[in-house]
Amino acid sequence: MISIGIVGYGNLAKGVECAIRQNPDMCLKAVFTRRDPASVKILTPDVPVCPLQDAQNWQGKIDVMILCGGSATDLPAMTPEFAKSFHVIDSFDTHANIPAHFAAVDTAAKESGHIALISLGWDPGLFSVNRLYASAILPQGKDYTFWGKGVSQGHSDAVRRIPGVVDCRQYTIPVADAMDRVRRGENPQLTTREKHTRYCYVVAEDGADKAAIENAIKTMPNYFADYDTTVEFITMEQMRAEHSGLPHGGSVIRSGSTGWNGENNQTIEYKLTLDSNPQFTASVLVACVRAAMRMYSRGITGCQTIFDIAPADLSLMSKEELLKTML
Amino acid sequence: MISIGIVGYGNLAKGVECAIRQNPDMCLKAVFTRRDPASVKILTPDVPVCPLQDAQNWQGKIDVMILCGGSATDLPAMTPEFAKSFHVIDSFDTHANIPAHFAAVDTAAKESGHIALISLGWDPGLFSVNRLYASAILPQGKDYTFWGKGVSQGHSDAVRRIPGVVDCRQYTIPVADAMDRVRRGENPQLTTREKHTRYCYVVAEDGADKAAIENAIKTMPNYFADYDTTVEFITMEQMRAEHSGLPHGGSVIRSGSTGWNGENNQTIEYKLTLDSNPQFTASVLVACVRAAMRMYSRGITGCQTIFDIAPADLSLMSKEELLKTML
Repeated sequence: MISIGIVGYGNLAKGVECAIRQNPDMCLKAVFTRRDPASVKILTPDVPVCPLQDAQNWQGKIDVMILCGGSATDLPAMTPEFAKSFHVIDSFDTHANIPAHFAAVDTAAKESGHIALISLGWDPGLFSVNRLYASAILPQGKDYTFWGKGVSQGHSDAVRRIPGVVDCRQYTIPVADAMDRVRRGENPQLTTREKHTRYCYVVAEDGADKAAIENAIKTMPNYFADYDTTVEFITMEQMRAEHSGLPHGGSVIRSGSTGWNGENNQTIEYKLTLDSNPQFTASVLVACVRAAMRMYSRGITGCQTIFDIAPADLSLMSKEELLKTML
Repeated sequence: MISIGIVGYGNLAKGVECAIRQNPDMCLKAVFTRRDPASVKILTPDVPVCPLQDAQNWQGKIDVMILCGGSATDLPAMTPEFAKSFHVIDSFDTHANIPAHFAAVDTAAKESGHIALISLGWDPGLFSVNRLYASAILPQGKDYTFWGKGVSQGHSDAVRRIPGVVDCRQYTIPVADAMDRVRRGENPQLTTREKHTRYCYVVAEDGADKAAIENAIKTMPNYFADYDTTVEFITMEQMRAEHSGLPHGGSVIRSGSTGWNGENNQTIEYKLTLDSNPQFTASVLVACVRAAMRMYSRGITGCQTIFDIAPADLSLMSKEELLKTML
């Protein structure tokens, strides 16, 4: 049995808790929180919720810490710090800062002789590994990543900061025609606007200037200005009834050519359709716990990514079973 | 540079030859054939075509032999034999016999200190590895594999053996409604007939009994009896004009549930749309050559499969580049 600790208890952490329950070779030992532990009620019976600063006392009792903090401020400090005492898993997803995060975690994990797996989930994560497979197999080709239909938490938060806005749910929607062109192997050049549209459901304060809110959203640089955005005002009741979930998904498509003169088109598509983005991300993290322990048992320490995981290490099945039933 | 030899020169081997040209770290050294070498004209300039029995003389000059024989009789003997003298790659695809083939190749490769990668391609191969990832990430779920639309060479050959048939091209077609049900997360129980239909384009001899041919096809056990099959008679000119390619593809779909009570559905789909089945299969084999050499350089010998390949080993990029551009 692999003993797991969870750091944090937001949506991702709750997903991790649920995923551990689906894997018979793992068990949850404790949840660590910055909040008052008495105020945090978890789902698993008889598992303690502990103050974050007590985590060090669990050395020897917990094999792997799954760090469920945010990428902006939590994980850059937390992952290297925890890697001094435990094997660690995170979902660090600020693409541009991955090399720096990798370096910091690698130093800490190598010094302490632990293994750390970072930037797991679906993007970065499964989408990344599919980009890698596809580009290695079709060297003459072009990659496209489409996201959605799904809720972007960052964009929803940005709208919530506009004066007069009570709540917002922002959906990122891939442009069907653009995806079809890519799938047909046309290898089109697509602008940001041509790939995705954005749809905002907004609850406004009573008496708020809705035209001003709509304009503030549509002209917001980085978040909305480069997209065709639709704003729809709804009531709080509608928001609760129709937009309480966190669905997401998307497709990584590579279209390439083979043959002596590149005469044949070949298309690889990897597509996710997720009712719950945080629970799916959590399921990837938990499967990678098993891989981390197997890699560590073969003497591997330091920082690793999904690119370094041999797929067999993710599975509960033995190599013999895999050959018989999966290959 | 990795030096490669190709054994055989059919459609798959020609695809391998084309794929090597797309990879700047590999070069083709020789093609080996059972036929009269003078009768075999290859595409690559200044590369010799040699008799199969001369292959042993190329030890030290060729790193990896890509074995392009058939799974029925060629590869079971050829792969273990060549593994005594070279690193080897094959596309052995008789699913039921993979464990026995693995054992024979493993013994030979371990004794001689070589690495062997078997059963590469897309099914077995990329489809297998996607079944593995998806089942590890969504332990509570169900896998579906759909093939097509594409030409099945085995089924085309079976029809050609019917008296009165001059030529046949058999297309395997997935049932769109069944795929949609799977994609929606319904987890249906599907019979063979409900998953795929078969469509045969047949050129008959002048004066042949077409009704008898159609009946012979539709009632043929294993190949057609369990499917809804359509037979269309065409002319040899139509066959040449419209059915000269070898397109194929398909989808591996896993639909699973997450959440404390399995309340959320999550669907992973991996889809291939291939203009040329043999060229794509060849592209997988060639990408795996690179992985084989990297694994061997770390001391790994014996028989391995796509399950054992860390994705990073497939890529021409360094780990640093992968972190920066792919993750």
